[in-house]
Amino acid sequence: MSVTFAQGFSAAGVVAGISSVEGKKDLALVVNNGPLDAVAGVFTSNRFCAAPVQWSRKAVADGHAKAVILNSGGANACTGEAGYQQSVSTAEAVAELVGAQAEDVAVCSTGLIGELLPLDNVLAGAKAAYAALASTAEAGADASHAIMTTDTKAKTVELTGSNGWKIGGMVKGSGMIAPQLATMLCVITTDAVVSAGQMQAALTVAAEHSFNRIDVDGCMSTNDTVLLLASGASGVEPDKDEFNKLVREACASLSRQIIGDGEGASHDIRITVTGATSEDAALACGRAVAASNLLKCAISGNDPNWGRIVSSLGTVSPEVAPYDSEKVTVDVNGVRICENGGAGRDRSEVDMTPREVHIDIDLNTGSNAEATVWTDDLTHEYVHINADYES
Amino acid sequence: MSVTFAQGFSAAGVVAGISSVEGKKDLALVVNNGPLDAVAGVFTSNRFCAAPVQWSRKAVADGHAKAVILNSGGANACTGEAGYQQSVSTAEAVAELVGAQAEDVAVCSTGLIGELLPLDNVLAGAKAAYAALASTAEAGADASHAIMTTDTKAKTVELTGSNGWKIGGMVKGSGMIAPQLATMLCVITTDAVVSAGQMQAALTVAAEHSFNRIDVDGCMSTNDTVLLLASGASGVEPDKDEFNKLVREACASLSRQIIGDGEGASHDIRITVTGATSEDAALACGRAVAASNLLKCAISGNDPNWGRIVSSLGTVSPEVAPYDSEKVTVDVNGVRICENGGAGRDRSEVDMTPREVHIDIDLNTGSNAEATVWTDDLTHEYVHINADYES
Repeated sequence: MSVTFAQGFSAAGVVAGISSVEGKKDLALVVNNGPLDAVAGVFTSNRFCAAPVQWSRKAVADGHAKAVILNSGGANACTGEAGYQQSVSTAEAVAELVGAQAEDVAVCSTGLIGELLPLDNVLAGAKAAYAALASTAEAGADASHAIMTTDTKAKTVELTGSNGWKIGGMVKGSGMIAPQLATMLCVITTDAVVSAGQMQAALTVAAEHSFNRIDVDGCMSTNDTVLLLASGASGVEPDKDEFNKLVREACASLSRQIIGDGEGASHDIRITVTGATSEDAALACGRAVAASNLLKCAISGNDPNWGRIVSSLGTVSPEVAPYDSEKVTVDVNGVRICENGGAGRDRSEVDMTPREVHIDIDLNTGSNAEATVWTDDLTHEYVHINADYES
Repeated sequence: MSVTFAQGFSAAGVVAGISSVEGKKDLALVVNNGPLDAVAGVFTSNRFCAAPVQWSRKAVADGHAKAVILNSGGANACTGEAGYQQSVSTAEAVAELVGAQAEDVAVCSTGLIGELLPLDNVLAGAKAAYAALASTAEAGADASHAIMTTDTKAKTVELTGSNGWKIGGMVKGSGMIAPQLATMLCVITTDAVVSAGQMQAALTVAAEHSFNRIDVDGCMSTNDTVLLLASGASGVEPDKDEFNKLVREACASLSRQIIGDGEGASHDIRITVTGATSEDAALACGRAVAASNLLKCAISGNDPNWGRIVSSLGTVSPEVAPYDSEKVTVDVNGVRICENGGAGRDRSEVDMTPREVHIDIDLNTGSNAEATVWTDDLTHEYVHINADYES
């Protein structure tokens, strides 16, 4: 289903010969058939941002977009003026096909950095994709497959609001264990009647609480892009709170799926920090713990190593997160193995067999701010994928 | 040689039964026989700092120390008041043996966090070490072995200054790929006639440019300790600049040896950032690159992946390190594979067979500030060690 779940959208995913994997679907097209053409976007903050990001950021700035073309098999990043012209040519070609201005077409790419795309293949693929456009579940699924790189499964979401308005989406994310370098491309579609401004506000908050919290430091790759498109085809003007809530749920579901498909991961780790003086403080603590290779290795070895948790916590500066180290408690999968900053119940009591590991840290400052971040464990398979895959 | 290279020091390394490895030397004693008893120290900034660090920081604050006792097999961190009392008792026992005040004895521990030490073994070991004290090369070597954990070799340094004054040292560092959690213990001795104040100034600068630059983010473990002791036994008052230089060289050598023995590492990676607007800017860029798991994996696969280098660089905020991404160049092992922020010479030209990999990044801002950091690659063996070793 993915991007075709909401009314007013058609999609396709085709084999364009961009990917080095023979016969892999590597080009997706998503078209908004209206009546609205509202769009909102969140992009990487990386200073080496890719050509398609430079293009798309400008293209969606006016709140209007008619189509999105996405390719795997090449990031078109660090490719200079020639790379930028490739994104422009791609947008122009799609614009001509769908009957729009180039500025109404967003472009997304993922794959190897530093090489130009095989443009002829991209343009021929765009034509093939246009010819294959459909509003079926299969067409949506094809699009979600075409954007995959080292992903092992397509990641989609479908939600329905009051009075029947819908929101659907797809995402690809390959190596989110080291997310500052892993490209994430996400397209979310809705048939709700909403303004671009309302969408941008909802998407910014939703991304901050989802895609920006499944990582080490909030940094992004050269190509990260999250787009939200509205067709208005349902005719339903949703309650603002409900709209915000469903956008947030869609982003949460898709980001959770990225963690579930983390490269080589054998455990999905949820780190929740409570009892902090502020949400920023809780977030800084959660991210410090999530960034620990030693902890990630321990978890992959089924060891709930609380020493590595508190050591990471101890690297957060007191200005950022005030707390008393002798009041901190840590629960892993519900067992309080660290109490008052020291040993609590025996770590052998913790059942580490579930894929999902819950690390609950209470800073006990007397305040109640909290934050949750997700990460994956660090396995032999992660090293294998990233030592041998050219990306 | 290590700590017994300089005159006026005796040392020992004995099997005390603290380590879980049967028959492993796990307790070292270093005694300053004077005539001076000057000391300087640099300690972890971790907020969950271990009991021995809390004790030793106070003990060396007055610039005087007669002895240092170090154990592997247990960190005595996150052990509360009981753990602190163990450090006090250990210092008292050593003080009685060497004829000093407890406040003149520094204590260092490394190993598993969150458990008390087997104190009887520590105290009996201290007696055995005292009985074995010698100023021989062998005694120095024994001490350097007794502090090892996952280290595969002892790490020592010996340097001689003008007029024959000497400086020697030993260090243990196990998992410096993720250094914010890896305990590093270092004792450096000199027979120069120097003041504690001069030593502290020299050591602080030296540690900043060595131990604090073989890592990801400058954070330290719960137990990290670097001590510099002076006996004055050479009778030589060294030139201040020469003294600073040799302390820095000793620290550089020992920190380089830690990288060379990084857990599971197959490459030692030197990252030099030049053409920056300030040393802090260069350092921030170097650390961002050194922190990339994706790059570390690529290097272990002999792939000089410049895309992963510039992507990491791009996560440093412009406020911290101003530069123009289109002017950046990257050389790996002398081959300019990234030019003006894009592809340069072909990556296949890079010879990745040497253990040492040199990544030279020129930000080309027009200014000339620079900084160098060292890291290791990320291998299957690293994951194995840290998934299976309880530390």
